[in-house]
Order: sequence, then C-alpha cells, then structure tokens
Amino acid sequence: MTDPTAGLPDTPALLLDEARMERNISRLARHAESLGVTLRPHLKTAKSVEVARRLTGGTPGPITVSTLAEAEVFFATGHSDILYAVGIAPQKLKRVQALREKGCDLVVILDNAAQAQAVAEASVPAMIEIDSDGHRGGLQAEDPALLQVGRILHDAGCLRGVMTHAGESYTVRGVAAHADFAEQERKAAVTAAENLRGAGLPCPVVSIGSTPTAHAARDLTGVTELRAGVYMFFDLVMAGIDVCTQDDIALSVLTTVIGHQPAKGWTMIDAGWMALSRDRGTATQDVDQGYGIVCDEEGRVLTDYIVVSANQEHGIIAPRAGANPAPLDLPVGTRLRILPNHACATAAQHDRYHLVRQDGGPLEVWPRFNGW
Amino acid sequence: MTDPTAGLPDTPALLLDEARMERNISRLARHAESLGVTLRPHLKTAKSVEVARRLTGGTPGPITVSTLAEAEVFFATGHSDILYAVGIAPQKLKRVQALREKGCDLVVILDNAAQAQAVAEASVPAMIEIDSDGHRGGLQAEDPALLQVGRILHDAGCLRGVMTHAGESYTVRGVAAHADFAEQERKAAVTAAENLRGAGLPCPVVSIGSTPTAHAARDLTGVTELRAGVYMFFDLVMAGIDVCTQDDIALSVLTTVIGHQPAKGWTMIDAGWMALSRDRGTATQDVDQGYGIVCDEEGRVLTDYIVVSANQEHGIIAPRAGANPAPLDLPVGTRLRILPNHACATAAQHDRYHLVRQDGGPLEVWPRFNGW
Repeated sequence: MTDPTAGLPDTPALLLDEARMERNISRLARHAESLGVTLRPHLKTAKSVEVARRLTGGTPGPITVSTLAEAEVFFATGHSDILYAVGIAPQKLKRVQALREKGCDLVVILDNAAQAQAVAEASVPAMIEIDSDGHRGGLQAEDPALLQVGRILHDAGCLRGVMTHAGESYTVRGVAAHADFAEQERKAAVTAAENLRGAGLPCPVVSIGSTPTAHAARDLTGVTELRAGVYMFFDLVMAGIDVCTQDDIALSVLTTVIGHQPAKGWTMIDAGWMALSRDRGTATQDVDQGYGIVCDEEGRVLTDYIVVSANQEHGIIAPRAGANPAPLDLPVGTRLRILPNHACATAAQHDRYHLVRQDGGPLEVWPRFNGW
Repeated sequence: MTDPTAGLPDTPALLLDEARMERNISRLARHAESLGVTLRPHLKTAKSVEVARRLTGGTPGPITVSTLAEAEVFFATGHSDILYAVGIAPQKLKRVQALREKGCDLVVILDNAAQAQAVAEASVPAMIEIDSDGHRGGLQAEDPALLQVGRILHDAGCLRGVMTHAGESYTVRGVAAHADFAEQERKAAVTAAENLRGAGLPCPVVSIGSTPTAHAARDLTGVTELRAGVYMFFDLVMAGIDVCTQDDIALSVLTTVIGHQPAKGWTMIDAGWMALSRDRGTATQDVDQGYGIVCDEEGRVLTDYIVVSANQEHGIIAPRAGANPAPLDLPVGTRLRILPNHACATAAQHDRYHLVRQDGGPLEVWPRFNGW
C-alpha cells in the first residue's frame, strides 16, 4: 500500500481526508434532494474555494456565508447566490451594495426595525430571522414586530423571505431529538411566512437548518431551502450527538511527539490550542474528548487516549479519565493525528488544508482564509 | 477632544492601545534592569514586527518565539538572537539549521536524550528545559537524565544553558504568590545549572520566566535572563490574578450592536468566538468574565456587563451572574469594545492590529501573522 501521508508537512498541520469529505457532501446532498428542498451549504467552516467547488461538482450553487470577506472571495470565484447569515450591521451595507452592483445576489438577514430601515434605504434584499429555539437572535413567528419589519422591507421591495437556525439542536443527542428540532425549525419558519403572507407581504423563501436538523429532517413541507455547514468535515461534537461516526470526521491535526513525563503517563506533542483551538465543545457531552482524540499517523484511533491539556504550542496526551489503556510507547519524532472537537474552530486556526488521499496520490495544499 | 476611534474599521476588529502597550513594555524593562538580568521578550502573543520594534526602541534585541515561522519573520526583520521555546521535534532541525547558516543565533530547547542526540548531530545549540512546577515538559533539576542530556550536548559543543517556565503561576493570585513561583523557577534553574557545572558541563545561560513571575521576582541571583510574553498587552486573566489592572489591558475587540432580545436582557453583537477566541481563561478565576468585559467605543468599562455567550460570529451581552446593573440602551449600530480573557488567543484570531492613539492621531494598521 502506498503511504497516504508521504511528504507530509511540518507539524502541526491541518489534514483533510478527501474521501470522507466527499462522502459527507454526498450524504446531505442526497438527503436534501429526497426532501425536495434546495441545499444552501454554509462555507463558514471550510472558507476554502476548493471545498466550495466540491460541493456541487464544479458548478457554483447557492451558498451561505458568515462574513463579508467570505462573500467577496466566493463571488470572485463564481458564486453569485449568497446569503450572509449574520444580522446585518448598518455600517456594512456599503460593502453589501458594492458586491450587489457587481452582480452578486447577496442577501442579508435581520430581526429588527432599525436594521430593516437601513436595509430598505440601501435597497438590499433581506430575510427576516426567526427565533425557533431561544438560541440567540430572531423574532418569534407570532411577534407583532414581524409584520412591522416585513412591511418596511416589502414596501422597499426588499423582502426575500424568512430563515431560522436551531442552534440548540447541538445540545441533544440522537436522530429522534434532532428530528424534533427540525420540525420546530420548520414550524416556526413556515408559520412566520404564513403570517407575513396573510398580511399581504409575499415571502418566497423559507430557509431552515443546522447540521443536526438538516440530517434528521423527514418532512419539510413549506420549506424551500436547507442550510448546514460543519457537515462537510464533521467533528467530535457531531459524533458525540450521533449525527456522524468518528469514521466520518474528515479533519485532523497532524502533530509530532516531542517528549514524555513518564511518571505522569504524559506524552508531549507540538500541537497546542494554537493548532487545535480552545474549543471544548465535548466538555458538556456524554463523553468529554478533552482537546481531541488521538490517532496514529494513518488515522487509526488509539483507543482511550485524548489530548487532556493544551498550552499555546504544547499538547499533553494521556488516557481519558477512568480508562486504563496499555501504556503508549511513542518515541520522540512519532507523528500522530488529533480529531478535533469543533471543525469550525480548529480549521480557523490554520491557513491551509493538506489534502490526504486514500489512493496515496500526491498531497495537495488548499488555501483557506479568515477575517472579516 | 479628538475622537480616538475616528476612521475605525469594519467590525469585528482588533484594537491595540499604543499608550498602554508602551507603558506595559517600559514597566517590565525597568524591572528586569533593576534585577540585573537580560529581558528576552516572548513574541508569541504579538507576532508583529512593529510590536517587536517597540520592545527595544527600534534596536533588535534578544527574543523568544513559539514557532519557526516567528523565528523566520523576526530574523528577516533584524532579530538574530532567538530562543525557540517549544521542545524541538527532530524533523524541524533542517529549518533551524537553514536559519543558523544565514547568521541567526537560533537556539532550541529539549528535555530528553533522543532530542539531544538529534540536536548534537545537527550541531544546533540547545537549552535544557527544567520542570520547576509540574506544569508540562522539562527535567527535574535532580534527575540523573539531566547530566546524561547535558553530556550529549556538551560533547557536541551544543550546551547553551537551562531554562524553565512556571506556567502554574497563572493559577495563583497576588504578588506574594507569584514571587514564590519566581523563587521556585530561580531555584530549579540555578540548581540544574550548578549540577551541570559540578559534572564539568559549563552552563552559561540560566533563563526563567512567565508574565506573573517576571513582574513579581525580587532576587534573581544566579539567573541570567528573564522571559515573558503576554505582558505587552495584558488581559483579563492577568488582571484576575493581580499582575495588572483592567486599565493596563492594551488589546480589545471592536464590535457593533446588531440586535436585542429584550425579554432576556440580551444585546447581540457581531463579535463571536471567531473574533474573541474560545478562550475562557477567567472561568476558573475568582471572577468569571465570560467571553470578555464590555466597554463603550472609547474603552470605558460598562460595569457588570460581559459577553455571556459566543457563537462563531455572534456574541451575547448580558449582566454578569448575580449583578443587577441598569439596563443597557444601545441602539443597533452602536460600537463597543470587548476586553479579552487571553490576549494570546484573541490576537491569534486576527491578521492585523488597529493601533489606537490617545492623541487621536491617524489610525495605523500593523499586520500580524500566525502559522508554523
């Protein structure tokens, strides 16, 4: 067998398993098709032109972004149907207008009259954010302010639709619980759309989604599009709530053993929080994965070993609490992979993906970007 | 008065208060001078050529780095006396040698015989890391392996000295407790150096330091140099253990109000963990500051308001637990500043500093970098 990690970069480095990513992309694409809705992938996790290309077989399709920097990069590389899914700050409308004038159908979101007035004055199309789970922003579907905001947008020709995101779906485990949240998203968004329509305010787009609900949804009557982001890569948080298995996680951090504290059973590595991120998303789950699960260089899990502690450029590997695995015997210089808690946070610590191919093909480097 | 934030950038953005930074730099420079030791600032927090220039009034001096990328950038901009203070992975020695061949006196650290053998074969000078507090890597001063490692390095002409870092000093509060850790660092490093010398292994450099111990140290007999990093900017973690006050914190994240959830008392902002980092370093301190303390646009603290929750690009401002301040009345579009938990982690989320001058002078942009 060819060594799939031949020619690997200096550590720490971010690896992306191409086959797993493509399997994850196909899985949700097929599911969205079976539900009869448009899939509008969220690029906030990937922030990569190459990953965006893989989403739709090379043809740019509808996407979601979390920053105007993403909108600018993806528009420059062929995407012209973009939802900017963070409540608009009025000061940012000039950048939105600049993109729209170049031909980008960039749509913003909002949940209050002050934003709606600013958006109406700027003639920028907007979706109204609906609060379906008390997670953060958004108007309740029955809030009288919905019609007020809808009217402001409609009168300016700016009302594109409604959208919601059940971030609370991350806090429950299993497909049945996620399906309940999907139905909660659907019901809130469809009710809001119907309330707007009942007031004479056309609402063509009804958009819902989060990675757990997108995979669990069974009936999306009244919904027109589905959004999800982290599903391309998956991570331990998603595995911990059964949206995927650990074998689906396409992202890992390559690291090197730099020492040991034998009396403590510690193995020291050169991946700290700068490479892994400070995200401790599994800390509140049934199984706390520390700063990530340890795998060998080829990606096979070293059962019951996790990164228990992280400084800026140092990680400490030890058995998970309560476990008593065989001692590790990893000489200085040994390379390992760490599966991340939260793909969005870990990817954000890196400026490139090192693509790992199952067939041992040449390692490709895909740039990624951050910033606003 | 001129508006010191005129011409501010799109939010979120990282602000650096020039006057506070310069005050922090002077404070530790004076203290090191009074202790009779060389200050070797750690650039892992700043990762900025401009900040490095401010450390020594424009003349490059000795520095510490946490990545070879830092070593390469700072050498290219005039720094030639560099300690790379993360245990060396043998695979990285080629990059170290390449810098040394160009004239950079780059020194590595290590704590085991396997590393020492690799370093000796590469003829790279090294410091032996001493464990003074059980925090992560390093050999005990009395460990027989110290002499074994020292002998390998000495025989190859590579033994530069010993170094230690009391990371545990971050977990205690007050100057007396930090002074105890400084003495613990001093004693461990000096004992290790004497043990090496007693075995006929010259040990010219004795290096200690962390931001808390560097400020609290009162007598550094036997120590030749002091290291510290976050002190240039400070942060809420350092303020929480009394190394500085909140008024010394030079770094903040500029953000904009994008909405409200009035029933919950929430103010929504466009700075989430992508701008603030996932670091929750104050969570285990006497006062938990959430994801940061809220200030107005000019940097005045809004008492008892913190960022209680953060998603990728959203933050939620609310009163701290148990407090009952007057309600905030911040219209959409209001700009705020957030003081960060951990300057190293927050700065790492940004690719530039926006320099804020007290005299209202023009806003300057200083690039910063990440990566390895």
